[in-house]
This record gives sequence, C-alpha cells and structure tokens, in this order.
Amino acid sequence: MAASAALKSRVRSESFLKKLANAEDLLHHFPNGAYIGWSGFTGVGYPKKIPTALAEYVEKNNLQGKLKYNLFVGASSGSETENRWARNNMIERRSPHQVGKEIAKRINSGDIKFFDKHLSMFPVDLMYGYYTKHKENNKLDVAIVEASAITEEGGIIPGASIGASPEIIQMAEKIIIEVNTAAPSFEGLHDITMTDLPPRRKPYLIMAPEDKIGTEYIPVNPDRVVAIVESDYPDQTSPNAPEDDTSRAIASNLIEFLKHEVKHGRLPQNLLPIQSGIGNIANAVVGGLASGGADFRNLKVWTEVLQDSFLDLFDSGNLDFATATSIRFSPDGFKRFYEGWADYSPKLLLRSQQVSNSPEIIRRLGVIGMNTPVEVDIYAHANSTCVMGSRMLNGLGGSADFLRSAKYSIMHTPSTRPSKSDPHGVSCIVPMCTHVDQTEHDLDVVVTEQGLADVRGMSPRERAREIIKHTAHPDYKPILQDYFDRAEFYCLKNGMGHEPHMLFQSFNMHRALQEKGSMKEVKWEDP
Amino acid sequence: MAASAALKSRVRSESFLKKLANAEDLLHHFPNGAYIGWSGFTGVGYPKKIPTALAEYVEKNNLQGKLKYNLFVGASSGSETENRWARNNMIERRSPHQVGKEIAKRINSGDIKFFDKHLSMFPVDLMYGYYTKHKENNKLDVAIVEASAITEEGGIIPGASIGASPEIIQMAEKIIIEVNTAAPSFEGLHDITMTDLPPRRKPYLIMAPEDKIGTEYIPVNPDRVVAIVESDYPDQTSPNAPEDDTSRAIASNLIEFLKHEVKHGRLPQNLLPIQSGIGNIANAVVGGLASGGADFRNLKVWTEVLQDSFLDLFDSGNLDFATATSIRFSPDGFKRFYEGWADYSPKLLLRSQQVSNSPEIIRRLGVIGMNTPVEVDIYAHANSTCVMGSRMLNGLGGSADFLRSAKYSIMHTPSTRPSKSDPHGVSCIVPMCTHVDQTEHDLDVVVTEQGLADVRGMSPRERAREIIKHTAHPDYKPILQDYFDRAEFYCLKNGMGHEPHMLFQSFNMHRALQEKGSMKEVKWEDP
Repeated sequence: MAASAALKSRVRSESFLKKLANAEDLLHHFPNGAYIGWSGFTGVGYPKKIPTALAEYVEKNNLQGKLKYNLFVGASSGSETENRWARNNMIERRSPHQVGKEIAKRINSGDIKFFDKHLSMFPVDLMYGYYTKHKENNKLDVAIVEASAITEEGGIIPGASIGASPEIIQMAEKIIIEVNTAAPSFEGLHDITMTDLPPRRKPYLIMAPEDKIGTEYIPVNPDRVVAIVESDYPDQTSPNAPEDDTSRAIASNLIEFLKHEVKHGRLPQNLLPIQSGIGNIANAVVGGLASGGADFRNLKVWTEVLQDSFLDLFDSGNLDFATATSIRFSPDGFKRFYEGWADYSPKLLLRSQQVSNSPEIIRRLGVIGMNTPVEVDIYAHANSTCVMGSRMLNGLGGSADFLRSAKYSIMHTPSTRPSKSDPHGVSCIVPMCTHVDQTEHDLDVVVTEQGLADVRGMSPRERAREIIKHTAHPDYKPILQDYFDRAEFYCLKNGMGHEPHMLFQSFNMHRALQEKGSMKEVKWEDP
Repeated sequence: MAASAALKSRVRSESFLKKLANAEDLLHHFPNGAYIGWSGFTGVGYPKKIPTALAEYVEKNNLQGKLKYNLFVGASSGSETENRWARNNMIERRSPHQVGKEIAKRINSGDIKFFDKHLSMFPVDLMYGYYTKHKENNKLDVAIVEASAITEEGGIIPGASIGASPEIIQMAEKIIIEVNTAAPSFEGLHDITMTDLPPRRKPYLIMAPEDKIGTEYIPVNPDRVVAIVESDYPDQTSPNAPEDDTSRAIASNLIEFLKHEVKHGRLPQNLLPIQSGIGNIANAVVGGLASGGADFRNLKVWTEVLQDSFLDLFDSGNLDFATATSIRFSPDGFKRFYEGWADYSPKLLLRSQQVSNSPEIIRRLGVIGMNTPVEVDIYAHANSTCVMGSRMLNGLGGSADFLRSAKYSIMHTPSTRPSKSDPHGVSCIVPMCTHVDQTEHDLDVVVTEQGLADVRGMSPRERAREIIKHTAHPDYKPILQDYFDRAEFYCLKNGMGHEPHMLFQSFNMHRALQEKGSMKEVKWEDP
C-alpha cells in the first residue's frame, strides 16, 4: 500500500511505512472479548479510524451486544468513537473514566462494567496486571495509539494528549498506530517517561512545572507494531462551557481568598502551580487570573488538562509555564493554538497522566487544586461521581489525585442546581454526601457564589458552621442549620458528638428531591 | 541547678546543660490558650515531666476547664499525660490523632475540638500555618520534645519515635527538651529530614527501606531552647493485643493470597515492603510471616509503627530490614529490644512521620498496606474513624496514607463484632459505610476470617458479589445479598445501576442495631 505525501512527512521510520494498512483490513486483530487499550485523554489524541471501522462492522452485521470489548483509555475518548461503541453495546468493561451520554447510559443500565479509578493510579495498576488478572498472559491484546509523527527509530510522537499511552504500549501484545495527518505534528511538546515497577521505581526528579525528565517520544518495540494507519480527521472537540454570573461570582470569591493567603504570607506573590479542572467555573477562575484584576503575575500551571481559557492566560502575559497531560481546546482554540505555536509551545509541556497527576509531584510543588463536585456535605466530604449515591456521571478522574495531595484543596460549586420543578431544587451543600470520593481529611476550602468556607484545621462542628454560613444558598441555610442543630444536640447528649449526624435522616433532602421535586421540601424530626 | 551523672552522659552540649530546670519552674511558659506541640507517636517518645506538672497544677488549683491548650502531637501520646489532660478538661483543640478513653470521651462530648488528619500531611500543614492561622504569628508557642540524648551542637536525638517532632520544632517559638535517662540512648537509630516548603521542596531520594537520606539528630536553633529537664521514667506502654482464632484465620487467608500473587508473578518471592498496623490481626499476620510456614524470606518492612511481633519476625531470620516512625513495644518487648540492641539496631531505622507515611515513597516502593477498619461496605468503601457516622474512635491515622498509595491496599477485619445482646450483633460488612475514610477507588482486597475478596479491576456490582460471598459472616450473607439484589433491581430499572443502593434504607442495619440490639433484625423493603 502506498503512503501519501502527508504520511511520509510524518513517519520517519521506513520499516513502519511498510506496515501501512487500511483500518478495514485490521479487524481480525479484534476478536470478541479482546482487551484493548486506546490512546486519548479528555477527548483528544484518541484513535479514530479503527474504532470507527469496528463500529461500522458491528452495525452492518448486526453484531450489537455480540462483539464486546474490554476497553482501557487514559480518560475519555472521542464521543464519535466511544459513544458509538456504547450505542452498539460493544463495551464489556471500561476503566478508568468516560464522558458521553450513551456510555453513561450503558454503565447505569448494567451493560458496561465500569471501574473509575484515580487517573494517576490506573496506568500503574494496569502494569501491575490488576485489569487483566483473569487473562492467561496478563497483557492487553491490542493497543491502538494515535501519533502525530513517528521518529526514525519508530518512537511515537503523540498528539494533543499523552494520558496512559506509555503504559498501554508497555502492556500490549500488538500495537496499531494511527498517524493523524489532519492536525499538525506536536513534536517537541512532550516529556515522556515509561513506567518501571517496584522495587525498581525511581523518584520523579521534577522540582518545577518546566522541568524535563523524559524523551520527546514513546519508545516502542517495532516487533509489536502490527500496522500503521493514516488518520484523516482531527479530534472532535466541542466549544467550552461559557462563564455565567454564578461561575464569575465563584471565581471572584476564590481570587479574593488567594489574595488573602498571599497577604498572610502563606503563598508567594506569584502563587504556586495551579490545577484547574474543566467546565465553566474553571473557565471563570482562569479568566479571572487572566483579566489582570487579580494582580498575579509569573504564574505557573501544573494540571491535568488545559482548556481554551489558558490561551487567554498565556496571552495576558501572566502565565510563565503550563504543563498537563492533555490540551483539550475547542476547534477555535486549536486553530488559535496552531497559529500561535511559536509563542505557546516554549511555555508548554505534555506529560503522561501518571506524572501530571502524580501525588508525589503535586505534594512537592504545593499545587493549588480546584475541582467541581456533585455535592459537598457540611463536614467537607465531597461526591465527585455518583448522583443519589448510585448513578455514575463520568468517574473520579484526577480529582482525588489533586485534592488529596495539593497544598490547597478547593472544591468550587454553585450552591444550588435546578430540579425539574424548582430552579433551586437541588442544594449542592447537603448534610451527608450520598457517595464520598473526597473525604473531610482532604478538603481545605469550599466555595460557592455565596461565599467561601476556609475549613483548614477545624473540627467537624466548626466546619459545619463555616460551610453552612458561607456557602449554602439562602433558601437552604436554615434547613441545613436546623439539621446540624438537631444532630448536634442529639449526638452530644449521647456521647457521639464528634461529627453529629441524624444518621437515619441524613439523606432526607435527597428523599424530598426524589419524592417532592425539591430538597426544600425536607422535614427534620428529632431523632 | 546541678546535672546528674546520668544526664551528663546524655547531654553533650555544655550550653544546654546550663539550661537545666525543674518542670515545676517552667509552667509560666504555658498560659491559657497556648498552642503547644509535643513529641511522641503511638504512645512512645512523648514528654512526661512537664505535662504531668501542668496536670498537677490544674488539679491542685481547681483549674479544670479554665486552663486549656491547643495541643498538637504527631499521633497519640502517653495515656498518663494526654488522658490526664483530657480528664482535667485541659485540651481545647487536638490534631491529628489520639488514643485513650478520656480523650475520646471529651471529643465526643464536644469539649475538645479534634481534627483527625492524614499523619503524613499533618506536619506540613502545620508548617503551612493551617493550624495556627487565627494566631498573629502563625507559630506554635511552645514545643516540649523528649530526647534520649543531645549532641555537642545541641541536636536532639529522639527516643522510640520521631513523629512530627522535626516540624513541631521548626514551628515553635520556644522549645523545652525533656531528656529521658530512664531508657537507653537511641543514638544511631534515626534518619531525620527537616521540611522545606514549596517551591523549595525536594524529592525524597529513598529507593529501598534501608536508604538513609538525613541526619541522626534533629537540628535545633539553641536560642529557642528555653530549658532542658531530666525525665526519669520510661514510656508507659501496655502489652500488645494477643492473637485469637479469628485473627489467625484472617492472617492465614491473607498469607494464602500473598502466595497466590507470588505464583502469578505479581509479587517477587520476598514480596515488597510490608506495612502493618497495630492490633491483634496485625500481630497474627506478622506472626504468620515469622512462623516460617509462609515461606517468605528476606522480607522488608516500610511501616508507621512496629509492635512486638516484629521482634519475632527479626528473630525468625525472615526480616532483612524494617523502618517506621515509632517502635511501640510492650514493656517486655522494650526489654527484649534493649538486650538485643546489637542485633536489631543495624536492621532498623526510624524516620519522621512525613517520611514513613509519605505517599511518594509508599507508591514508589510498592508497599503492601494492611489496616483494620470499623466497617467496610459491599462496594469497598471503608470507615476507619466514626462509629455510627458520628462517634470518633482514634482518628484516621496513617490508614489513608498507606491504602491510597500502596500497591496492595488491604483491609482486614473480623466479619462481625459483638453487640451487647448478640455475639454477632454487628456485621463489619455493611451496605453503606456510615462514614467514609477510604473510598472504593483505594481498596484492592477485603479479608475476614470467612475469606478474601480480591476486588481489583472490578465494577461496583462485581465487587459487591465478591465481598458478600467471600467476607460476610454466614448470618449476614443472605441479609446483604437481599439488600444488594433489591437495590440492583431497582437501580438498573431506573437507569442508575452503576453502584446500586436503596439510599433511604442504606443504614437500616445500623438502625436495627440501635433499636433492636442486632443488625440481624433488619428488614428490607422494595424502594
């Protein structure tokens, strides 16, 4: 098969060019039940051609639910591949994270066995054999990895994400590389480390976000590369969620807090490396830092994923360096990034998710970690994953990697969300989280548009007062205070007042929501 | 004041000897509301003379509840000091851990504001100023630190624990040193590192339990040492909890599992460094490794605290090296240890709790972490701290430091505990934990005397089946299975089946215990 000029310009290894194939001719590598690893993270850098060809094959031959795979991707893949697989009931098992309506539906209907895992731990647990322990050979059968270029020696230069590709490649018996010629080569933007296992693991010698410790490519054993495929369309991202009044108010409260910390000498004037999640609050926070009003200069970012607002932060001149495992820009953002490549690329580095989310490095650097939960309770536990304790959204992601180890562990959320019948029917501040992903031992600050609760060093009863007073919506403040007062009275009286709960009423706000359409309809009784 | 010969033999600094004082003459350093740091960890290496003198002063002058302190100790102190303070209502605030009936009582009655925190994070959060943020100077007022000797330059050589002493000393305005002459000098047994703050933190360059990276003493600024006191009685420890049939059965299940992992190539023949907690299950596990039946040789230990059974493990010849932040032996154990000093000391190193419990090192070394919870739920969340969600036992300790970052995160517990009226009235396997300290994202293995559930890589519904089948007591197996079946049916039907719960019945077993004296009395209804 003849390689296109575009492909030849990307693939510098002659022997790899000889392995060029069509996606449709590679489907025999994917028998039912295969254990498959994909590159990709937050919907960028994922393989496109073979997943699409497999989906088409299933659709054409009515094999829905009959051809099913165990699928491992660093985080979420592109919705046109992973969601299509889910729609076709092609996924038996999935770890450690996902995004998409169809896949969430299949997880919650029981068709997909999903295990969400700390994104920093998934790659090494994969290497430990924890996801393949029922297989004879403890390996992934096939890895499909997208590359933006390939070196002379066959090293893979990823695209806009690295994620778990190094470990997926280390664990795969066969490797198929999709070389994407629709987006530019990302050569020079990566710092890649492979994973050794105990007792041979070494420290990550990173002391600042700009430190390089690895190679610019993922080394691959060419014998295991069974084919390369040319991929001809870019990552299918969507625009970022826009800021609104609520997210701007949250960001403003947060920036005030950071100024306060600088003033009291607990943070340097240029802060410490920032981690920010995805979504409109994160956008507003980063936007606030970019706007100049915050007065922070020479910032650095140590995070999991960069979204468009970081381009504004670069352009503001306030950001000296940023590193992540993925750049998930909107289509317009990618255009802007490619056009400004010469300016942006010297200030940017992509790493594997095991490094970007490494508790070792996050703790050493003293990262300021900020994430959005489903709900937070009055004692500062947070739910990041399961609505009503059961329904999976996207998974834990890197939230606990960062919030456990950060110097500042911050949860930001609107104080309420709408229910079907009430624009404030759901309070995001609740008596007890219906699922706990971050514990009270991990959170320092809870912030909503109402205000900010700084619970560092506080006992649970102090925390409850602080969180109710500063972060709850006015509609819920008396409701939560009433819960706490009754619980405190009852528990202190009974010698169990460390963290007062009315255990058998602790989910009554959720019950009121389910039965009456709004958490406001809750009634407390003395226990 | 003239120094005794014993004291002179320990204190090599002439200038420190000139600061010799009686405890009774130092009480003016402790005004009401002072922020105080003590050395000590798991009831060894804590100061004895001044805490006792302060307690006597309060008792003589009827100042109970009027002289109160903010007290920070690496973990638990000696019960004759800390518990006496609690009995006298002398503690306003306490972090991050404690052991003792009186102090737990005061915490649960609301007299003590207690914040339990990861033991690895407490020292650096203290340095960050998180526990002193309402004070003007962000410092501890006084540190009382026990030493077993003092170097020429005034460096402190701790006794049987290091704990948070380095950071407490770094944070203290005044330092008082109690030199204990009733136990031998521990010189040579410590590897001590001080804490730098971001952006100046460095990697811990430890690649194996025996690696030394620090000094044999805690460096101290002599200007801040206001006095030294001779201390004349040893750590007041009690005998270790003995093994019983249940703990032996748990240990046996666990050792079988480790053999299985070696057989499948996921562990080397000499395992990886072991972390083991305190208590009779830990004793049985370590005893099992010592007895030789387990067939593991050249073991190493990376843990928080060593108890007597580790002496057996040393004596068995199977243990090459052990490191911890504390050796909490029984009085007989200490006797044995001092007599065998020449044999034991070359194989032993004590470190600060920030290092012994460091997630960075625990993850790098691939530690096998084992702890005992209050309860575990069917989805592998664990409660380590709060009975019935509210009543504090001892605090989180290092459980989450180890279980989050270990290669093997293992919870071992009897399947049941007695209630007042039923020898099996409390099931330690429950539908939903009433308090979550370790999440489902952190645990790999749950083991009881009934068997072992290996939940690595499993979805929540798979985990529930595995945990109920292998670890629940026969009396509770049908009860838990019934809960799970009903929850699964309901949640799958309603598109929320990722982690099925009957949310408003999830604590009904606890309710049955409270209202009817046994969890067996629970009744489920379809939701």
